[in-house]
Amino acid sequence: MKKHNYSAGPCILPQEVFEKSAQAVLDFNHSGLSLLEISHRSKDFVAVMEEARALVLELLGLEGKGYQALFLQGGASLEFLMVPYNLMKVDGKAAYLDTGTWANNAIKEAKLFGETVVVASSKEQNYNHIPTDYTIPTDASYFHCTSNNTIFGTQMKSFPKTDVPVVCDMSSDIFSRSLDFSQFDLIYAGAQKNMGAAGATLVVVKEEILGKSGRTIPSILDYEKHIKAESMYNTPAVFAVYTCLLTLQWLKNQGGIAAIEKVNEAKANLLYSEIDRNPLFIGTANPADRSFMNATFLLVNPEHQETFDKMWKAAGISGLPGHRSVGGYRASMYNALPLESVQVLVDVMKELEVVYNNQSQLAEK
Amino acid sequence: MKKHNYSAGPCILPQEVFEKSAQAVLDFNHSGLSLLEISHRSKDFVAVMEEARALVLELLGLEGKGYQALFLQGGASLEFLMVPYNLMKVDGKAAYLDTGTWANNAIKEAKLFGETVVVASSKEQNYNHIPTDYTIPTDASYFHCTSNNTIFGTQMKSFPKTDVPVVCDMSSDIFSRSLDFSQFDLIYAGAQKNMGAAGATLVVVKEEILGKSGRTIPSILDYEKHIKAESMYNTPAVFAVYTCLLTLQWLKNQGGIAAIEKVNEAKANLLYSEIDRNPLFIGTANPADRSFMNATFLLVNPEHQETFDKMWKAAGISGLPGHRSVGGYRASMYNALPLESVQVLVDVMKELEVVYNNQSQLAEK
Repeated sequence: MKKHNYSAGPCILPQEVFEKSAQAVLDFNHSGLSLLEISHRSKDFVAVMEEARALVLELLGLEGKGYQALFLQGGASLEFLMVPYNLMKVDGKAAYLDTGTWANNAIKEAKLFGETVVVASSKEQNYNHIPTDYTIPTDASYFHCTSNNTIFGTQMKSFPKTDVPVVCDMSSDIFSRSLDFSQFDLIYAGAQKNMGAAGATLVVVKEEILGKSGRTIPSILDYEKHIKAESMYNTPAVFAVYTCLLTLQWLKNQGGIAAIEKVNEAKANLLYSEIDRNPLFIGTANPADRSFMNATFLLVNPEHQETFDKMWKAAGISGLPGHRSVGGYRASMYNALPLESVQVLVDVMKELEVVYNNQSQLAEK
Repeated sequence: MKKHNYSAGPCILPQEVFEKSAQAVLDFNHSGLSLLEISHRSKDFVAVMEEARALVLELLGLEGKGYQALFLQGGASLEFLMVPYNLMKVDGKAAYLDTGTWANNAIKEAKLFGETVVVASSKEQNYNHIPTDYTIPTDASYFHCTSNNTIFGTQMKSFPKTDVPVVCDMSSDIFSRSLDFSQFDLIYAGAQKNMGAAGATLVVVKEEILGKSGRTIPSILDYEKHIKAESMYNTPAVFAVYTCLLTLQWLKNQGGIAAIEKVNEAKANLLYSEIDRNPLFIGTANPADRSFMNATFLLVNPEHQETFDKMWKAAGISGLPGHRSVGGYRASMYNALPLESVQVLVDVMKELEVVYNNQSQLAEK
């Protein structure tokens, strides 16, 4: 039976990415060698890295605007550290918006470097919304935000205008919607949502903001060293980078971000409409801040859980349980999840309502 | 034609690792899902991580001896930073043996943290040997060495006895030879030589040496946090870790380190015997310090290069040119390279001698 994969990440990727990357593991570019056994400095892999880096800037509309794309390692969690190391001025401060677990982790690492101003937080409300009423200190070295909160199902729909550099963790919604990406000075994202296999981290940085912190930066954490080495300062996560290239090529063939955004809107609208219509379900995030990537919702009556769980599993759905800090369900609808899979989930939700209504009618008799 | 892959890393892995990992990308454990699209916290992947960590300790003979194995990211280059962050005491010092480019890079990062004593260096002789006459300060927080030097073709055959914790970068010879691994307190290694695909970094650490530096360690760099999280502090490089498991399983099936060591000795003896016998070639490393993983050698007469290069390429050999800092040739003979491939290279070297002898005889006539 076809699987409908709602995993929050690592998550579904386009089928052609699985097929082409598996083939490359067996025989890369008809070389008679596996992708895994060739030098990262071989002509064939350098070409992969270069095309992937160029495609990132092309898809984000950042070509020729002073940005560099890097494929590093360590996930967003290492970026939580690299950002203040590279950008927070000695004796300076940084401003952070606290919208969830990952934002909070980023804040913790920044505090090791200097004054870290949390301009606003929705923690008291279990991160069910995106704060909007805050001021960014004009003397901050940078402002940091998280565009999409995987765990809590919220997403920033707009970003503050400010004169300080804007840093955004886009791990869970990069390449999913049209934005003016030039409003950001540094974007980072773990690959394992919309971009490729776990193990690569994308960093897109405007070069002019670098080299100003006054800190001595360890080589491996220094964005300028990675740029100078053309994203090959040390051996990159070769396979993960290749899956990123394949996914970016797929996205370009779909029509780029503008095209996938329409599909993502259709999927999110279909699911949220059902959550709002169906009396058995309730969404957890503030409707205005609902994520188009991760829809979080609860059963109104927890007694329906056993039946619902059986039903969606029987329909071939996987990865639906919510994160332990929110409970309930989380439907992650990344770029590669087809609309058809959302329809299957919505059908199960409707079916549950029918089952429940029938039971109620029987009980009344 | 069959390829004989002498790449220095990423490098040849067992054929079954390519086949099984490619299959997992298409359908992992008959789940109907790709290895790349399942949660790293799924039962199936947690089992991969646990088995890989346990196999590391089993193969190294370190079970039940207070060690933990971790699969992290960032390569040895990130370990150059993590080691002093975790181990160098505030106001303390560290001792380093400088045997090559990577040792040197490790020293550079350590210097950011405190006094870094280079107990000996072979840099002046272009790292052609392993220094033996040195003293490790008894008040050092740790002693750091590099067991095998990929670029210069040297390898430590013994390790100093010392009361300070011994840290060893084994990136290019781990799992290749029998050692008393309990003489080391911390071993690290990038996966991409003897262990698996690039993107995973193995760290084996004796727990009792941790938590003593007095430093505030960023979470993502803190070995204790990674141990507590069972090597899942953040999303690991899933695919790379899986290839490590497959390679470790293969090694165990070969008979473990003791069995592969015999194969590696046979390969190294075959090649070094020819380098020493054949008047057209000369080795670059001090014979007593020759690496059994990477044999570096030169043509006595550089005019033979064009002919030799054509001949080994025609024989299906790839990855033979030496690193730019040494020149000549480098034959990397990692665990998965079969003896047969070394025989093919040796045959080409013998053939070159015949060609040359014939040319000399013709010239004399």
